Amino acid sequence: MLSELQTPALVVDAAALDHNLRTMAAALPGARLRPHVKAHKCTALARRQAALGHRGFTCATVREVEGLAAAGLGEDLLLANEVLDARRLGALRARVTVAVDSEETIAAAAAGGVREVLIDVNVGLPRCGCAPADAGRLAALARRKGLEVRGVMGYEGHAMLVEDTQKRCQLVSDAMALLRAAHAEVGGDVVSAGGTGSFDRNPVATEIQAGSYALMDTAYQKLGLPFRCALSVLATVVSVGPSYAVADCGLKALGMDHGNPAIDGAKVWFCSDEHVTFAPEVPVRVGARIRVWPAHVDPTVAYHERMHLIAGDQVLESWPVDLRGW
Amino acid sequence: MLSELQTPALVVDAAALDHNLRTMAAALPGARLRPHVKAHKCTALARRQAALGHRGFTCATVREVEGLAAAGLGEDLLLANEVLDARRLGALRARVTVAVDSEETIAAAAAGGVREVLIDVNVGLPRCGCAPADAGRLAALARRKGLEVRGVMGYEGHAMLVEDTQKRCQLVSDAMALLRAAHAEVGGDVVSAGGTGSFDRNPVATEIQAGSYALMDTAYQKLGLPFRCALSVLATVVSVGPSYAVADCGLKALGMDHGNPAIDGAKVWFCSDEHVTFAPEVPVRVGARIRVWPAHVDPTVAYHERMHLIAGDQVLESWPVDLRGW
Repeated sequence: MLSELQTPALVVDAAALDHNLRTMAAALPGARLRPHVKAHKCTALARRQAALGHRGFTCATVREVEGLAAAGLGEDLLLANEVLDARRLGALRARVTVAVDSEETIAAAAAGGVREVLIDVNVGLPRCGCAPADAGRLAALARRKGLEVRGVMGYEGHAMLVEDTQKRCQLVSDAMALLRAAHAEVGGDVVSAGGTGSFDRNPVATEIQAGSYALMDTAYQKLGLPFRCALSVLATVVSVGPSYAVADCGLKALGMDHGNPAIDGAKVWFCSDEHVTFAPEVPVRVGARIRVWPAHVDPTVAYHERMHLIAGDQVLESWPVDLRGW
Repeated sequence: MLSELQTPALVVDAAALDHNLRTMAAALPGARLRPHVKAHKCTALARRQAALGHRGFTCATVREVEGLAAAGLGEDLLLANEVLDARRLGALRARVTVAVDSEETIAAAAAGGVREVLIDVNVGLPRCGCAPADAGRLAALARRKGLEVRGVMGYEGHAMLVEDTQKRCQLVSDAMALLRAAHAEVGGDVVSAGGTGSFDRNPVATEIQAGSYALMDTAYQKLGLPFRCALSVLATVVSVGPSYAVADCGLKALGMDHGNPAIDGAKVWFCSDEHVTFAPEVPVRVGARIRVWPAHVDPTVAYHERMHLIAGDQVLESWPVDLRGW
């Protein structure tokens, strides 16, 4: 029973999750989607994505790659991130592809025993990725080092949360023009890009790296996407003041980089380490259970040991968040 | 060796930690300080605090209380937080005192088998704590339920990070006037309050609940306290752009509620899940190691499995962050 869970507890609405997974699988069937596990860090959830036909996964950390491989989900794992020590990747019994964007990361992949790479191209977000004009040179270098270059990746992250749909599409389009040009120089079958905010607006990518769509959050919800907020933190009201109440879900149970969480029928005042102070429209009593909706799913999940799949008041399954850490 | 740590890695400068612990122990010897473990969540670090004479601890979660008890540090544990289910606390072989601020939390303490309580008083921060005028009534109620009322607590958290020292002192003073009045109604030996920002400016409290002083962060550093930033995240530069660089310490390795971290000799642009993008004053190379200084220590520590005690390039000890979760 939901009422028996100790709080704060990460809960996932089973119907919303199922809706999200099926909606995405219909839009991007099979290998057209390479789900990004950084958003949920949970092999049990990844298994559900695989059961719907997505058998390749995107990872942000070596630990995520290792965890998926250990869970038997290692058919085609992409570490969409640069590493300077690839030995843990090279030691895995799984198909592992790693992003490279420099001579150093190419050397690390080769030295670590990784066999396949994507050339990571900067398509407008100042983060990893080589200059588009440098992609061909790096691909040739990687091939000289004995690496199989499967293609390119380029994450248009600067477009992902732009609320104006037309502007978002334009940014995606501009970014993908850069990636397409780089791909022409690099070759290979794979053009990996995109995310939840561009899942249906990126015709260039051969595969989309969306992750947040499965659980969603209040930031992505603003975009009017066909996915539902499935993830919340169950909390208990532990104190009631004259015009506010306090629940036991604080900033150690929530990713705070996108700001405060939301509470239905209430205005959130602020979060402390273990508390959220909020003004409810209708008075709440001490001991009441509430749902706190995170602004950013990824760093929220990373604080929790488990997520509980629920339907109404029933806890259907409890899944370890087993891909945390590095 | 520091160079062998996989990044991101939480590192603690041994000399700075030692300075902080000794400085505080000199200012607030023995039971005058009840160190708050929520800031470091590490029993190995708590042992060092106990070795310097502080044998009672403050906790924010049941898990922290359980962990300290299991580590043999259960001489006098205060859960400075309200709970509606105290059974895990009542089951411990340790001296456990819990904060109460309502009829419901008093009933929960009694039902859960906890024997001692503090009346938690709201001294100006809209979070937990009863109205000062209600403290006497709640103390009487708790005693009727068979609970030992040890005194009061009241956290002047609204004063803690006020940079203007005079203003901070005034806020602390106003808050403690309320707590003193409530204490007169409640009785008992304990007046528990304060934090790192008021450790030497709170003459009312019989014990100070400071926690951040041990590791510190950039937010507390602005107050000009006699404590040094001991905690940083060791990161590796994984990519270098035309005017920026990217290291593998993102917002899943940092508490972000106080804003971006700091990097020496660089301007931080933004954090992503696994990256910090920054503009270094002097170019850095791919593979270089940097230190990232968190803005808020508590939620930073809560993301990490271990912290490494270091001296220069040497790793002296690796401590589990064993008090995470709830």
